[in-house]
Amino acid sequence: MSPPSAIQQSLTESAVASSIAVHNRTETTNVGTAAVPVTSSSTPDLPELDASKLKITITKNPKPFIEDVSGIEWGNQDVCTDHMITAKWTDATGWEAPELKPYGPLEDLMPTASCLQYATECFEGLKAYRGYDGAVRMFRPNRNAARMLISSTRIALPSFPPSALEELIKTLIAHDAPKWLPKPGTCIYVRPTMIGTGVALGVQKPREARLFIVAALFPILDTKPMKLLASSENSIRAWPGGFGYAKVGANYGPSLMAQKEAQSRGYDQILWLFDKSCLVTEAGASNFFVIWRNRETNKLELVTAPLDDKIILNGVTRRSLLELARARLTGTEGEIEGLDVIERKYTMHEVVEAAQEGRLIEAFAAGTAYFVTSVIDIHFRGVDIQPLEKAGKYTLLLKNWLQGIVYGKERHEWAHTIKEVGFKSEPQDEDEIEALAQKIREMKSNPAWSAAFARV
Amino acid sequence: MSPPSAIQQSLTESAVASSIAVHNRTETTNVGTAAVPVTSSSTPDLPELDASKLKITITKNPKPFIEDVSGIEWGNQDVCTDHMITAKWTDATGWEAPELKPYGPLEDLMPTASCLQYATECFEGLKAYRGYDGAVRMFRPNRNAARMLISSTRIALPSFPPSALEELIKTLIAHDAPKWLPKPGTCIYVRPTMIGTGVALGVQKPREARLFIVAALFPILDTKPMKLLASSENSIRAWPGGFGYAKVGANYGPSLMAQKEAQSRGYDQILWLFDKSCLVTEAGASNFFVIWRNRETNKLELVTAPLDDKIILNGVTRRSLLELARARLTGTEGEIEGLDVIERKYTMHEVVEAAQEGRLIEAFAAGTAYFVTSVIDIHFRGVDIQPLEKAGKYTLLLKNWLQGIVYGKERHEWAHTIKEVGFKSEPQDEDEIEALAQKIREMKSNPAWSAAFARV
Repeated sequence: MSPPSAIQQSLTESAVASSIAVHNRTETTNVGTAAVPVTSSSTPDLPELDASKLKITITKNPKPFIEDVSGIEWGNQDVCTDHMITAKWTDATGWEAPELKPYGPLEDLMPTASCLQYATECFEGLKAYRGYDGAVRMFRPNRNAARMLISSTRIALPSFPPSALEELIKTLIAHDAPKWLPKPGTCIYVRPTMIGTGVALGVQKPREARLFIVAALFPILDTKPMKLLASSENSIRAWPGGFGYAKVGANYGPSLMAQKEAQSRGYDQILWLFDKSCLVTEAGASNFFVIWRNRETNKLELVTAPLDDKIILNGVTRRSLLELARARLTGTEGEIEGLDVIERKYTMHEVVEAAQEGRLIEAFAAGTAYFVTSVIDIHFRGVDIQPLEKAGKYTLLLKNWLQGIVYGKERHEWAHTIKEVGFKSEPQDEDEIEALAQKIREMKSNPAWSAAFARV
Repeated sequence: MSPPSAIQQSLTESAVASSIAVHNRTETTNVGTAAVPVTSSSTPDLPELDASKLKITITKNPKPFIEDVSGIEWGNQDVCTDHMITAKWTDATGWEAPELKPYGPLEDLMPTASCLQYATECFEGLKAYRGYDGAVRMFRPNRNAARMLISSTRIALPSFPPSALEELIKTLIAHDAPKWLPKPGTCIYVRPTMIGTGVALGVQKPREARLFIVAALFPILDTKPMKLLASSENSIRAWPGGFGYAKVGANYGPSLMAQKEAQSRGYDQILWLFDKSCLVTEAGASNFFVIWRNRETNKLELVTAPLDDKIILNGVTRRSLLELARARLTGTEGEIEGLDVIERKYTMHEVVEAAQEGRLIEAFAAGTAYFVTSVIDIHFRGVDIQPLEKAGKYTLLLKNWLQGIVYGKERHEWAHTIKEVGFKSEPQDEDEIEALAQKIREMKSNPAWSAAFARV
């Protein structure tokens, strides 16, 4: 039971840390500001991912615009925008120039591609928001870009300067937001993905990879509160020494059977517990928070699981809520009682006890997709427990603050304004001209654009 | 610490068990014999995967044959055969008729495909062997087909009758072995894969999926013994309640960084340990065995980790070696001392102790890809330990028995003989006729076919 020798510790951790250190040296001044190309590279002889090299090919066949976003079901149909950005990498030649091009199927993916066999894949999820002032904003995209590097390194995919990814994400939105995100108070979802495309069947680090960024229509936020089914000891999401902290495909597929079981029993998501002690970790693919009153101190506490064991996703929403709560909720102001903001391990037994003693005030799940959603029921070992408040005031406050920031009601450095662009290339033939004309007709028919057209 | 209530136990396990029970009811009489279409279905209204519906399209552009198999590096180049078998599934229409068609990239895989985002993917690995008697054999393909159903169910992919998959596997080999497996004493590798292709971005069970089966040239078996680096506490392959027992992509990608680190330090594979007690589990993607002398009883023991906790892959080679050892090595015969065959949890500390006391006789890794390979060195916490024998007699005996079976020296029910077929369709145009003529020229130039041509 002696600790492992220094030489053997953290094989994977050290690789991740070293890859990130190389890039973050040039990234630290870039957080929260517009991205600039980064010149440093972990493999100095090979080209880095470079957003300034982007080649742009505008679609000649724009998709029909879906006017009523409230009607779509995210994912149940293909609701991606007109364009995608892709970039290829090989271990021999580094990163090729990225391309913005018409959205479509992946070309040349072979049956033996590493991503289809060995799950060498990782992704990010973030949103672009059309503010009530007409501006498009993204929420802390630098955080997503930095986390994507952590994930890609963990899953043996190539490294890249996070600022380059951030710039590419913003460029896709700059091109597609004018048509696809016309309505103030709505958002579209952005999904950067990296996959190993090398055809090696031997289990090894892929020698080829591809980055792609797509954007998809997203439904109006569902504000229905959530019911959770606590996982059993026979079904766990992540473990220490694994990869629960990384946004890799391997964290999701294996959770689907439990998720389906939860839904068939009337619950929305699994509340993932860990260890025989039933540590509370995550709710579905979201982070999970409780607000309870401490029995000893009688103080209100906002509690969520810590990142130490690396079994919890380091959520951008999670981090932002903790920062907001620490800044705005720790002091008592007016009617709002202050609370302590705590990241610590806690068990389902503690949650049950708090509920039984009337101390469990609120609970919510938080993530990019479902934002901040109240949890009103948790089933654990045959018993359903409920927080006292179904739409608690702290949950609502935090949610409203975040919404204010992303939709531009509150000016905040977390919201990056996107400078939207038109079409960079001149139309070259009759089809292309007609395609652009059609796009203009669509925009003209859209009330959100009427003001702009009136000026021309 | 009380056990979970019955209602919450085994969400995932029960789903797996139920899916498998449905299919195995009709499968039990089918083990070890040629596959026949199965009519029962877990979704009675939708078409099942049905090998008898196979549509066949022979390639018009056969690939150049690689004469010298010893020169290829498995996976470092694309060395797949001329054809692949694919079959599409949707939750609305069930399984479409499978197709045998020219090997090539996957069509229409969208960027948001579930397999690229959430690792909804699983695979199998098995081989076809050209015997010294000229016949092609596969080793227990029914076992691989049955395990594929366990894996697909675990990763939320559709179910299918294992006998249908077995038949499809055999059909691909029946078509491609004549050209691609000409030389007695060699093998080609077969890789059935299932992927989720539904475009839903919501984390959910994929509504579309694809099965494909490809075959690839495999190098002459490397008999170089193996050196292993024991994993640290910070790097863990699998966990109870996870999916270590299933052949899903999610078990492989996350292991690559540790694997790369091992190789950069001069070792071939990671020896995966589990728990603070350092339980020995697997070696790379192979099962792991030790042969040691029990200190108390002074008896020789063949020991490998048990399947109980579901963190170990239920290897076909593992199972076969255990069965052979139980049948042939437990009694003392001539010069060969009998040994006890034991599946039990054992720790790295026990292995180290046995080595220090001169009781660690042999160690080997076993799996389809690397067959049975001696392990001559294990690095654990700063110390390298070695079994007494570098090419131990028990390891060699087991390996030779298996090789005898797959190459037809020993008649055994585990070896399924494949009836090779020619081209089922008539050539239709000049190009096709010339392609077939070229194929015949290649076969004529190959010594392995001379006897057959002499008869015609």
